[in-house]
Amino acid sequence: MSVRELVVLGTASQVPTRHRNHNGYLLRWDGEGILFDPGEGTQRQMLRAGVAAHDINRICVTHFHGDHSLGLPGVIQRINLDQVPHPVSAHYPASGQRFFDRLRYATAYRETVRLAEEPVAADGVFATTPAYTLEARRLSHPVESFGYRLIEPDGHRMLPERLAAAGISGPDVGRIQREGELRGVRLAEVSEVRRGQRFAFVMDTRLCAGVHALAEGCDLLVIESTFTDEDARLAADHGHLTAGQAAAVARDAGVRRLVLTHFSQRYGDPSVFERQARAAGFEGELTIAQDLIRVPVPKR
Amino acid sequence: MSVRELVVLGTASQVPTRHRNHNGYLLRWDGEGILFDPGEGTQRQMLRAGVAAHDINRICVTHFHGDHSLGLPGVIQRINLDQVPHPVSAHYPASGQRFFDRLRYATAYRETVRLAEEPVAADGVFATTPAYTLEARRLSHPVESFGYRLIEPDGHRMLPERLAAAGISGPDVGRIQREGELRGVRLAEVSEVRRGQRFAFVMDTRLCAGVHALAEGCDLLVIESTFTDEDARLAADHGHLTAGQAAAVARDAGVRRLVLTHFSQRYGDPSVFERQARAAGFEGELTIAQDLIRVPVPKR
Repeated sequence: MSVRELVVLGTASQVPTRHRNHNGYLLRWDGEGILFDPGEGTQRQMLRAGVAAHDINRICVTHFHGDHSLGLPGVIQRINLDQVPHPVSAHYPASGQRFFDRLRYATAYRETVRLAEEPVAADGVFATTPAYTLEARRLSHPVESFGYRLIEPDGHRMLPERLAAAGISGPDVGRIQREGELRGVRLAEVSEVRRGQRFAFVMDTRLCAGVHALAEGCDLLVIESTFTDEDARLAADHGHLTAGQAAAVARDAGVRRLVLTHFSQRYGDPSVFERQARAAGFEGELTIAQDLIRVPVPKR
Repeated sequence: MSVRELVVLGTASQVPTRHRNHNGYLLRWDGEGILFDPGEGTQRQMLRAGVAAHDINRICVTHFHGDHSLGLPGVIQRINLDQVPHPVSAHYPASGQRFFDRLRYATAYRETVRLAEEPVAADGVFATTPAYTLEARRLSHPVESFGYRLIEPDGHRMLPERLAAAGISGPDVGRIQREGELRGVRLAEVSEVRRGQRFAFVMDTRLCAGVHALAEGCDLLVIESTFTDEDARLAADHGHLTAGQAAAVARDAGVRRLVLTHFSQRYGDPSVFERQARAAGFEGELTIAQDLIRVPVPKR
């Protein structure tokens, strides 16, 4: 399965609305699922979005405010109730371990699944698989908050004419890809670099170095846009971004597809976020998130 | 305000469905609101039902399984965020204090409201106001579970002919009601007893003495009916009631209006609960609960 898409489970900030549940986002990355910031009600939103407990392999929590983590108990209990057949890893700010403990053991249930607690204590890579690495960067919010980035390693796109000229065909193509060299021909001579894809998840935060670092070169960036530009002062005071700020980050970082979300309930019409993102000069693909939409990671 | 009604916020049991949120019920009793068993998502269901945080004066939790209590953190945080101007009392099995602590302090937030922890440790009256008393009864479930009952004290309905014959009129009518006697005339001579109303909330439990005691003489009984009668064995094994069992309790207790709820997601068509309740001989008013309905307490 090479489905790479974001399933949006909830898009509200502190206060949910009739149309927006608290946060929740599942990144489907080939056969794996990474659940970000499950707010209250995520369990039921999963049902509505066609996401099952066994679709979750990792959970990443940016910080321990309720709208980003009160869905954890329900998700964890559901993973156990459904006896998910694989282990699940959980990543969250190490400084919030006491909150994770309370959420994990919020009420009585039977544990059937191995949930590996892998808290994040510093900037940098915190998980590596053959398919990707996961990095964290500290953000700027009243409580410690980490943004997350998934980086796929660069690959090689084989060049048929070069392969033919070098006399490499059939099973030898796979061999030179795996081994990097074959009969004196180097992989670089018969291929070009296929850059790996990048995804980042950034919330809640003021503008800071971490935001820019996470967004850099992303194919898909999900970023909070709690406030409109008119409320930039409120945003700064509460440790949040405006639509224009988020879009300017994406513009400078060369983001290909931008998803704005985590909107304050004070705004009735979400089109203002789109206008302000465009006014900030972001020219890539732009999605103003709504609950239950799916956003494909744009192909390279 | 003499509104007395049940606002149904959620009606699922362990697993929510597209149409049923996890549990949640607000009893509006004149100017007061008592929230029972807030499951995950109650905060958002309140919004849908037109219930505000300041409508809640008490919270009663029957037991600490997730579907009855994972909405507590969101409700408590919302009460504080909205700076509810009155104190709020919380009642729950004392044996679950550690779970209450975890839920109350699940994530970081600013406390602005006095939340009085008043755990229930034994059968009997645990709260008394001029308007009602609240009683708890131990139920039978794999974890300690209490059902709750609200009892309004009996009042007096004044009899105009008797008052006239005794020469009592104007402000003297209020005086004899308050003082019980006036100029040698006793209140009982000029009035009849107006029986106070009774409400009970019963879940999760097998049949046991507590169920019958709570249901006795209720004007409105909300009771779990997780399973159909065909699954009576499952119900007994897991500590739950069937539709027929719940209705038979209501029949024997003289319940006037019966609300069945907390349905297992395994049943598609809820009309089976109605048929089985009638087959059990319950002849009063019957409501098969749906999310967001309102059920008036029947007038005396």
